[in-house]
Amino acid sequence: MKRREFLKAAGVGLTSTAIAAPAIAQSQPALKWRMPCSWPKSLDTLYGAAETMCKYVGEMTDGKFEIQPFAAGEIVPGLAIVDAVQNGTVECGHTASYYYFGKDPTFGFGTSVPFGPNARVNLSWMTQGGGSEALNEFYKKYNAYGIPAGNTGCQMGGWFRKEINTVDDLKGVKMRIGGWAGKILAKLGGVPQQIAAGDIYPALEKGTIDAAEWVGPYDDEKLGFYKVAPHYYSPGWWEGGSILHAMINLDKWNSLPKGYQKILEAAGHYAHNWCLAKYDHLNPQALRRLIAGGTKLHAFSPAIMDASYKATMELHAEVAASNADFKKVNDSMMAFTKNAYQWFGVAENSYDQFMLRAMRS
Amino acid sequence: MKRREFLKAAGVGLTSTAIAAPAIAQSQPALKWRMPCSWPKSLDTLYGAAETMCKYVGEMTDGKFEIQPFAAGEIVPGLAIVDAVQNGTVECGHTASYYYFGKDPTFGFGTSVPFGPNARVNLSWMTQGGGSEALNEFYKKYNAYGIPAGNTGCQMGGWFRKEINTVDDLKGVKMRIGGWAGKILAKLGGVPQQIAAGDIYPALEKGTIDAAEWVGPYDDEKLGFYKVAPHYYSPGWWEGGSILHAMINLDKWNSLPKGYQKILEAAGHYAHNWCLAKYDHLNPQALRRLIAGGTKLHAFSPAIMDASYKATMELHAEVAASNADFKKVNDSMMAFTKNAYQWFGVAENSYDQFMLRAMRS
Repeated sequence: MKRREFLKAAGVGLTSTAIAAPAIAQSQPALKWRMPCSWPKSLDTLYGAAETMCKYVGEMTDGKFEIQPFAAGEIVPGLAIVDAVQNGTVECGHTASYYYFGKDPTFGFGTSVPFGPNARVNLSWMTQGGGSEALNEFYKKYNAYGIPAGNTGCQMGGWFRKEINTVDDLKGVKMRIGGWAGKILAKLGGVPQQIAAGDIYPALEKGTIDAAEWVGPYDDEKLGFYKVAPHYYSPGWWEGGSILHAMINLDKWNSLPKGYQKILEAAGHYAHNWCLAKYDHLNPQALRRLIAGGTKLHAFSPAIMDASYKATMELHAEVAASNADFKKVNDSMMAFTKNAYQWFGVAENSYDQFMLRAMRS
Repeated sequence: MKRREFLKAAGVGLTSTAIAAPAIAQSQPALKWRMPCSWPKSLDTLYGAAETMCKYVGEMTDGKFEIQPFAAGEIVPGLAIVDAVQNGTVECGHTASYYYFGKDPTFGFGTSVPFGPNARVNLSWMTQGGGSEALNEFYKKYNAYGIPAGNTGCQMGGWFRKEINTVDDLKGVKMRIGGWAGKILAKLGGVPQQIAAGDIYPALEKGTIDAAEWVGPYDDEKLGFYKVAPHYYSPGWWEGGSILHAMINLDKWNSLPKGYQKILEAAGHYAHNWCLAKYDHLNPQALRRLIAGGTKLHAFSPAIMDASYKATMELHAEVAASNADFKKVNDSMMAFTKNAYQWFGVAENSYDQFMLRAMRS
C-alpha cells in the first residue's frame, strides 16, 4: 500500500504539513530511465526536444528522476521506438506517432495528418479537445502512454529536381515522404518511399528518388537536399503542425507517483514550446541562406492543393468506414479544427495578414 | 551554507544516489504562497490560467509547494499586483505586465504592444529570442521575476455603438482600451479610458463611454457588451497574442530551491498552453452565439490599420529615444517578430489560407 492510500484508509487529513517530510520516499523515488529517439543528434531541434524534456525532468526533481536520451540507432532503431516501449525494452522514447501508421493509420493523428490542424490548433485539440485522451485510449493497445513533447510548426512540401506545376507532374515521381502522406501521393500518381533521415540524401543524389521532404529549412539544410534538388515547395500540406511525442510504457507510467506523472507532462509542454520556438527562430535564417545559395522557392498550385485535399478526404472516409479507432479520432480532430479555423479567420488571420505585409520590408 | 554548496565544498560527487534521500529537506521544503490575480473568478480563462498553474505546482510537488490563487480585489486590487509583489505583501501574483505601463512603458512588452508578435511568435521570442531575459532584467527594478503563464491569442478590436468606417470616425470616441494602446488611440483622436473589467459594462450602458474592448468573444460575451454596442471589430491590433505573467517577488524567487524554480517555470508553460487552448476551443462557439444574437462583425478598414501602425511606430520611436529599457526590449522583440513573420509568410500562412477556405463550409 502506498503512503497516500494508507493515509486515506486511516482517515488522516492530507494537509501539506502532514505530507511534508515523511512521504518523500514514495513520492520522489530515485529513478533512471532511458529515452531512445527517432532522431540523430545532429538534428538539434528534434533530438533537442527530447534532451530538453529529460533535462527538465532532472532539474525539477533535483536529479532524482533521471532520463537519458539516446540518438536513433544507439540502443533502438529510430523507427522502432513504439515497439521497444510496448515490449518494455525501454521505459520511454521520443518519436513521431505517425511513423507507426503501418501498424494502424490511427497513429497518424498523434503527429499530423494531411490537412489537419496547424501547430497551435493541434496542441489545443490534444489538451482541450479530447485529443490526448482519445489517442491514449488508442495507444493502450500498444501498452503506451503518449505525452506531447515537441512541435515542428507547418513543414515544407519538399525538394524536387524538376518543377511541379500541375497534378500530372506528380505522376511517377519517386518521393521520400513521411508517414501517411505517401498514401495521398500514391493516389495522385506519385511513388512514395519511406527512407530514414540519414539515407535520404544519397538516394536523392544517385537519382534513386526524384524528390524528398523532411521538415523545414533549418533541418533540411543540414541534410543537404538543396545541393541536388533546387525546387523547394510550400506548404507541406501533410504536416500543418506536427507534434512529437514522448511515448511511455504504460506499466511504467502507471507505476509512477502522481507527482512524477505531472512532472513528465509539464516537461513535455516545456519541450513542445521550446522546440516550436527554436524552429520559429532558426527556420527563417536558414531559408534566407538557402535562397541566397540558389534554392528556388515555389508554392504548390491551387490545383495541386485542391486535388491533394480531395484525395485526403476520400482516403480518410474509406479508412474510417472500416476502422473505428481511426473514425473516432479523425472525427474529434476535424471537428475541433473546423471550429478553431472559423475563429482564426476573424482575428488571428486578419492580424497575421497585416503583419506579414508590415514585416516584409 | 546549503547542502549542495556543502557537498561541493567537501568535494563529494553529486550522483543521483547520493542526493536521493537526505537532500530533501532543502530541495522540497513545505511552502505556502498566495497568488492574487488581476481577474475575477468569472473569467475562467484568465483566472483559470492562474488556478491551473497553482494546481500543477501542487501536484508536481505532492502538495508541498502550495500556491493559493485569489480573485482581483480579494487580497490585492486587480491592477496593483506588481506593487504587492514588489513590496513583498504577497509572494507572487498573476497579471498582465502591460497594466503597469504607467510606471514605465517597458512593462508593455511583457504582454503585448500594438503590432507586436502573434501568440506563437510572442512565446518564441520570450523563450528563444531573449525576451524573458530582457524583461527579467527590467523587472528587477521592481523586485520581480516574471514567468509566462497564459496567452489570449489575438484579441478582438472591441465593441462600438456606431460603425467606424474611417480614421475620422475615431475622433472623439471615448473608449475603454487596455494599456499602452490607449496612447495610439489618442494619437488618432480617440479618448482612451482605463476601466477595470467589472465597471466597463455600466459605463458603456450609461453612455459614459462609446466603445470598449476586453479580450475576445468568450470573455466579452460574459461581460455583456453586445447588449449595448452591436458593432464588433477585428482584429485587436494592439494585442496580437497577449501573454499573461506570474510575477514573483525576486527575493522569494531567489530563495527557492532550483527544482522549485523549474517547477514554477514548467507550470507556467503548462498554464500558457492550457489558456490558449481554452480560448481556441471556446471563442468560436461564443462568436457564433453572438452573431446569431445580432452582433455585427466588422474588420477595421485598411486605412485605419495603416494609420494605427504608423502612429505606433512613431510613438515607439519617440519613447525609445529617451528610455533605454524600452528601446532595448522593443528592438529585440521587433527583430524577432520580423524574422519570424518572414518565415510564416511561406509555409504557415499558405497552409492557413488554404485551411481557412476548406474549413469554412
